[in-house]
Amino acid sequence: MKKITRDQVIYAMGKSNKPVMHVNPGETLQIETEDCFSYQLVKPTDSLEENVDFSRVNPATGPIFVHSASPRDTLKVSIQKIELTEQGVTVAMKGLGVLGHKVKDSQVEIIPIKKNMIQFAGKEITCRPMIGVIGVAPGEGEVPNNTPGDHGGNMDTLDISVGASVYLPVFIEGAYFAAGDIHATMGNGEVCGTGVECRSVVELTLDILKDCNWRIPVIETNEFFYFVGSASTLDQAVEKAVDEAVMFIKQTNRVSWNSAYMMASLATDVMVSQAVNPLKTVRVRIPKSLLDI
Amino acid sequence: MKKITRDQVIYAMGKSNKPVMHVNPGETLQIETEDCFSYQLVKPTDSLEENVDFSRVNPATGPIFVHSASPRDTLKVSIQKIELTEQGVTVAMKGLGVLGHKVKDSQVEIIPIKKNMIQFAGKEITCRPMIGVIGVAPGEGEVPNNTPGDHGGNMDTLDISVGASVYLPVFIEGAYFAAGDIHATMGNGEVCGTGVECRSVVELTLDILKDCNWRIPVIETNEFFYFVGSASTLDQAVEKAVDEAVMFIKQTNRVSWNSAYMMASLATDVMVSQAVNPLKTVRVRIPKSLLDI
Repeated sequence: MKKITRDQVIYAMGKSNKPVMHVNPGETLQIETEDCFSYQLVKPTDSLEENVDFSRVNPATGPIFVHSASPRDTLKVSIQKIELTEQGVTVAMKGLGVLGHKVKDSQVEIIPIKKNMIQFAGKEITCRPMIGVIGVAPGEGEVPNNTPGDHGGNMDTLDISVGASVYLPVFIEGAYFAAGDIHATMGNGEVCGTGVECRSVVELTLDILKDCNWRIPVIETNEFFYFVGSASTLDQAVEKAVDEAVMFIKQTNRVSWNSAYMMASLATDVMVSQAVNPLKTVRVRIPKSLLDI
Repeated sequence: MKKITRDQVIYAMGKSNKPVMHVNPGETLQIETEDCFSYQLVKPTDSLEENVDFSRVNPATGPIFVHSASPRDTLKVSIQKIELTEQGVTVAMKGLGVLGHKVKDSQVEIIPIKKNMIQFAGKEITCRPMIGVIGVAPGEGEVPNNTPGDHGGNMDTLDISVGASVYLPVFIEGAYFAAGDIHATMGNGEVCGTGVECRSVVELTLDILKDCNWRIPVIETNEFFYFVGSASTLDQAVEKAVDEAVMFIKQTNRVSWNSAYMMASLATDVMVSQAVNPLKTVRVRIPKSLLDI
């Protein structure tokens, strides 16, 4: 299996990055990922002010050039494994998150991860390991890795986890896939701006679909499809994700647009992925039982 | 058991309404509720333009005067039963919902409800009966029943269902409780602006708590507390609900505000209730396993 080490990272997605590996469609590979702070916070005494070079946050391992990937194709990323390392870090930081204006003093919490569990403030929490940053190069320019978008990026979506497939629109030849920013766990919303941020080793398979017309990232699990929309506000992100989800229901079930819209209202769930990044992310969850597939 | 018929309704919550019943704390009562269109859409040939008097939408049965309820108390509403009637209605309406601007022709769908199931566009959907409008009179003025707020109102929140308790801040003597707008089912977000809108018979118990300092509606189920925030935008609603949830975790677990904030980020879930009413509603779900209760 091909492997990429965690020193091969980018901080923005774009075609100016030089690929660190070339793979064929269908190949499975192992990528080591760095944590979102580039492992600059590892001891309880480390501080955001003194230890963190903020030009090095949100690294993603890659980019990976996928042979035969062309604009308007779709990259399918199947996630086989997310191995957590032995510790993660969570912070409360002035200005960060939904209530960042209420943080008086920044704080760093180093959190041991044992047997898929963490302890925080005296409580046990079961981990839900997921990939925070996962994406491809956009068609033009660069998108910093702290930002999500149609190309993927910092979607911070809980369902991007083992067993799921993530579908990403391809914008340039080779796709330029990259991933990083694993969370041992987080809640929907990621309200303080961080989950349990940790290094990891991820195994995934990259494939290319030629006949898929999704314009935003889509996640597939055993039971659901999720249409993932990112925009400046949650309200705009909802509109974007619902628009694409309704179009998918309409086309898949060959029903009128009105029927697909009402169906979405009755039986799909709008869910908050994250409310804290430069663009906000929501997803619309469609049960497969609703679909003619 | 005291009963209120569905002809005793209000269209806005406020102290100018005359109570239709007085109850003591701890009393269980049965209320019939009207559907959100006041049963003006009952046949497949009925239309929004020709059959609906829009001054009569969103009726709530009540108001009910609860003895001993005073400002700064909390009204606890425990929901024992939501009996659905034999049919409901869903509409796609020009201008209504997240994609209302894309609705070309309004449409009315009468939907039979059988054995807690509905069929829509060829698919079977299991009902999740819930109460859309549930609230008390605000301290000043009137709030139309189409609008949610700190007083409750049109929160359209799926978890307001059988087995749950809803806690509402009391603003005036007697509380002036009212409820209506039952949905046989809806998805989180209620994206087209309607669920399966139906008449129902609801059984609930009203109680008064004197030592509770919640400033927004809270829902309790076996496993979770939900803090429910409504505001002009989803982003503002998230901030409001998270603020109250973090304060609750801080006070309940006697931890620092920073710790409560990080705990919320790691293990609570921000959820969209509805994205379509004049104010939008989100809830923050806190697992009871996180709390020292």
